[in-house]
Amino acid sequence: MTARSEYRVIEIFRNAFAETGCLDNAQLEADAPAVRGGRINIDAAVAGAHFPWPCPNPHGAGWRSVMAAVSDLASVGAVPTDILLSVSVPDVERYEKFLRPFAAGAAGAAAHCGLKLVGGNVTRGDFQLHSVVAGRNAHPRAGFGDARPGDRIWITGPIGDAAAELRALLLGELSPDGARHYWYPEARLSIGQALWEMAWVVGAIDISDGWIADLLRLLRGQAPQASGAAPGAWLDPDAVPRSSLYQERWSVHQDPEVRRAAFVGGEDYELIFLSRDVHQGAVLDALGSIAPNVACVGFVQAKPGLGWERPPEVALGSGFGYDPYDGSP
Amino acid sequence: MTARSEYRVIEIFRNAFAETGCLDNAQLEADAPAVRGGRINIDAAVAGAHFPWPCPNPHGAGWRSVMAAVSDLASVGAVPTDILLSVSVPDVERYEKFLRPFAAGAAGAAAHCGLKLVGGNVTRGDFQLHSVVAGRNAHPRAGFGDARPGDRIWITGPIGDAAAELRALLLGELSPDGARHYWYPEARLSIGQALWEMAWVVGAIDISDGWIADLLRLLRGQAPQASGAAPGAWLDPDAVPRSSLYQERWSVHQDPEVRRAAFVGGEDYELIFLSRDVHQGAVLDALGSIAPNVACVGFVQAKPGLGWERPPEVALGSGFGYDPYDGSP
Repeated sequence: MTARSEYRVIEIFRNAFAETGCLDNAQLEADAPAVRGGRINIDAAVAGAHFPWPCPNPHGAGWRSVMAAVSDLASVGAVPTDILLSVSVPDVERYEKFLRPFAAGAAGAAAHCGLKLVGGNVTRGDFQLHSVVAGRNAHPRAGFGDARPGDRIWITGPIGDAAAELRALLLGELSPDGARHYWYPEARLSIGQALWEMAWVVGAIDISDGWIADLLRLLRGQAPQASGAAPGAWLDPDAVPRSSLYQERWSVHQDPEVRRAAFVGGEDYELIFLSRDVHQGAVLDALGSIAPNVACVGFVQAKPGLGWERPPEVALGSGFGYDPYDGSP
Repeated sequence: MTARSEYRVIEIFRNAFAETGCLDNAQLEADAPAVRGGRINIDAAVAGAHFPWPCPNPHGAGWRSVMAAVSDLASVGAVPTDILLSVSVPDVERYEKFLRPFAAGAAGAAAHCGLKLVGGNVTRGDFQLHSVVAGRNAHPRAGFGDARPGDRIWITGPIGDAAAELRALLLGELSPDGARHYWYPEARLSIGQALWEMAWVVGAIDISDGWIADLLRLLRGQAPQASGAAPGAWLDPDAVPRSSLYQERWSVHQDPEVRRAAFVGGEDYELIFLSRDVHQGAVLDALGSIAPNVACVGFVQAKPGLGWERPPEVALGSGFGYDPYDGSP
């Protein structure tokens, strides 16, 4: 996998800050003194990059912008508490009609997750929303962990709906409000909280960029820029959980982009996690009631890169997922 | 004073969030559960709005972008601990030459203030840096307070240098690196910490938008959108502390824009505070060693708006300070 442009920016700041920290989107700091016992995460939503612009559903855009930030808290099992919003708007008058439903959607997502708005900022610039979310009670072990050969790889629920819906939306096959999975995702907070209670869970990440891209990040562990090979994965493409919605779109339309979206599309906000030293049945028993579609999709292997039980039916390309520097949504 | 466009955005989000919170740039939440005992602030720096673009001093732009966020912590006497950075970059390759010194400047300011980078985000979009800073040990009373008629209004040090330097920079009278006050401000952390130890300090804010604009915000107290008149101020323009640099530029050039900049220009990051029930001499004694230029510039009056001991020598306009929706720097 070639270096993503994004990582060059991360690297520049990492070097400047002499490795005292990390800008990685998916990285949550376990031990920030000012947020002891808590986790804090920042995520950005840029018009035209994180949702279509002009925006057919401003309320949904506001909801999903906040929920994307909350999703990182879900992956560490934290309980969301506080949110700060930094908004950049080019022209308040011209954007007001968009802003009102957008803010209502953001507020709806925040209320849904129990977040209280505690601060923020407004400035002039291209439309961007930077959401800071803080949570408490994350499990001390929670994080990317250290993947080891033999760990089983699990996905908590159906993948591909958001990406398939976005595709249908852009093709005009869905009404602006119709793409419910795309506009109104839900962070898997209760699943994340339950996961980290299990001693056999040794790593987790939320699926935001695409499950393969996020899995690769999980396999790289705490240091995305670290030299030295991360372990790889052996995967069964047919084991990935799919919803009936996705199956239907795939069987009816046979649209290869829909199929591909399920592999490289993100924003379903399910979780990928690693289990160690436990039988599959025990995992299914433990999670069956809160994540009925949870499925083992493969295991960690010492050999870097990806191996496939069966060849995936679609060309994956090199990126394996959303790259902010590779086209628009 | 007419409503600033910025406040309309704040109002939209405030309404959407049903008054559970506030987006006000200058507002720090005292009691965010996840940051108990601490304060958290977010501030944005947009290329072309918060520093000139193309940027003649990327290192300085990075420094001042972080320091602006830290300055809010200074106004509540907090000790900075952690920083998160959310960066939006349109094109990594094209911006790399700018990004490296910018990141170094940001890291320099963070290190200078004892901040550790604990997280962040990178995305594609117009160049923006959103800095989240957290601090601890803010005094429980620290904040805007409630201004009352008779409170004295103080400024901790010289005002106008940053704005005068920016003007000279844009006129080509200063080298790109020459504008030290503009590029390399320092948050008044130790002054803020000392201030709140004094029982007679009843409100404080940092000077970022311009001392009159920030004073008006301080007088409005905790609720910038509250209806009902805030108290006003009686001010002596000649009492405002000025540096020799400013005096020199004013006496040599007689540039009315330099004079105006001292009134409406911000980003000196001195503090304005209110004292109650204390003699001026006691204030000067208490702060003389750490803020030798501290000066009383007037007092709070019941009558809304501003009254002047002597008419200011320059037309102030209506904005009294930096408004993100009013021209560029």
